[in-house]
Amino acid sequence: MQNRSKAMNEQERRINAWMAKIKHKIVVLSGKGGVGKSTVATNLAVALAWKGRSNLVGILDADITGPSIPKMIGARKQQLEAGPPGIFPATGPLGIKIISMDFFLQADETPIIWRGPLKSVAIRQFLADVVWGELDFLLIDLPPGTGDEALSIMQIIPNIDGVIIVTIPSEVSQIVVKKAVTFTQKLNAPIIGILENMSGFVCPKCGAETDIFRVGGGQKISDDLNVPFLGRIPIDPRICEDSDQGSPFITKHSDSPAAKEFMKIVDKIEDFLKKEETD
Amino acid sequence: MQNRSKAMNEQERRINAWMAKIKHKIVVLSGKGGVGKSTVATNLAVALAWKGRSNLVGILDADITGPSIPKMIGARKQQLEAGPPGIFPATGPLGIKIISMDFFLQADETPIIWRGPLKSVAIRQFLADVVWGELDFLLIDLPPGTGDEALSIMQIIPNIDGVIIVTIPSEVSQIVVKKAVTFTQKLNAPIIGILENMSGFVCPKCGAETDIFRVGGGQKISDDLNVPFLGRIPIDPRICEDSDQGSPFITKHSDSPAAKEFMKIVDKIEDFLKKEETD
Repeated sequence: MQNRSKAMNEQERRINAWMAKIKHKIVVLSGKGGVGKSTVATNLAVALAWKGRSNLVGILDADITGPSIPKMIGARKQQLEAGPPGIFPATGPLGIKIISMDFFLQADETPIIWRGPLKSVAIRQFLADVVWGELDFLLIDLPPGTGDEALSIMQIIPNIDGVIIVTIPSEVSQIVVKKAVTFTQKLNAPIIGILENMSGFVCPKCGAETDIFRVGGGQKISDDLNVPFLGRIPIDPRICEDSDQGSPFITKHSDSPAAKEFMKIVDKIEDFLKKEETD
Repeated sequence: MQNRSKAMNEQERRINAWMAKIKHKIVVLSGKGGVGKSTVATNLAVALAWKGRSNLVGILDADITGPSIPKMIGARKQQLEAGPPGIFPATGPLGIKIISMDFFLQADETPIIWRGPLKSVAIRQFLADVVWGELDFLLIDLPPGTGDEALSIMQIIPNIDGVIIVTIPSEVSQIVVKKAVTFTQKLNAPIIGILENMSGFVCPKCGAETDIFRVGGGQKISDDLNVPFLGRIPIDPRICEDSDQGSPFITKHSDSPAAKEFMKIVDKIEDFLKKEETD
């Protein structure tokens, strides 16, 4: 028992040592699945790296049972290397460092049937045993919900700079996302703001706008719960296409309204962090 | 310890007694969040009830941290009643019986911050202490992933008739959904088939079709893994609108292509069950 607690202390020491080298740790959260959280995390990471931070951005894919970041960022099937300091993360565009359960699975169809405590163990290892190095940003993409992974991450990582909460506009989504806001507040983590994804669709043929998942839900949560609103990303079929091809939308289609909105959101995140520093 | 195991046996006895009164128990699963699993479960339940099964269909919302079935089916804020046999489920359209963590939360923003084992406890109670009565169908809507809830449900419920696996067409989704297929097979549950949701979008103004999340991924998984394909539900903004209003799309817009496809899928499910019975 004493040995076990010694090992835990040693792990915590390693986590703190790695995390101290990372300037900003940002969590991307949603109460509900399928709001495009991983797509948002991927594109935000690429946008942050693109603004003069090559090799200085990392993504921790904390979705243990459904990891999708490596596919979206075009870094699948990389063989990770291990050395004395630990496991080296995979590398994506602009030198983005990525760690994900996907790298440890032999085949696409291998499921991870793990109960909560085991998932927390994996996340601790992602933080303690991965050679993150000096980074400006580490984005942590949580699985949907306010369950084990979310709880573990929020409790394990020291000094989280802020949480971005992603939602789609529908009312059904709002109910669940409100829980994510309260969850974050209860854990005393600062909320950077709410991002409304899949907000309206413009027909590429006729230009008519259809609100497939409705519009305005993010703003409404922001008003109801008095948390900042970051912006609305419209639906663009090329976002899904680019994710499937592993080439991030934000650089590939940088002239699109959705990419421009992403960049505005990145500016707001940077402003939030600057303000935090001076406060 | 002996008392605890006595209580567990008593709970198991109650679960088995309730489940024996239900002709068919069907699990709705997806590896990935936001593929519209809860919308599919809701509309399938309504469709099954609509075909001459008023008061004979139930839905167990096993998404403990993000329950959305009550909102979608228009049964929110119902005060559940308890009597000597247990808690009585809420009632939706066509007498559909619903149990969900949503009925036990005081406010929309109350989050459920539970670790895995506690979630399993809740699900056991939903099965043991709810007065389901005689039903033709119980649909169990699992949260995304192959984690605790999925594992618990599959292990606790005796004689699951079959599993419906919901996906969206994108490749990113496919990787994760393949895991759900293997998960189901490992647990020896029969797979009824794969349902491709959000499959193509027709502009209501000009009729142009845009593949927002691409098309054909469900069929591809079905071919790759040799499991039946149930059908493709196209994107229709009224599905989200109706879910938000709590009036199921399938009865409200029964003439739409999406509703017709839903009904065809219900026929296939019934065929599957008939075949199982005669085998």
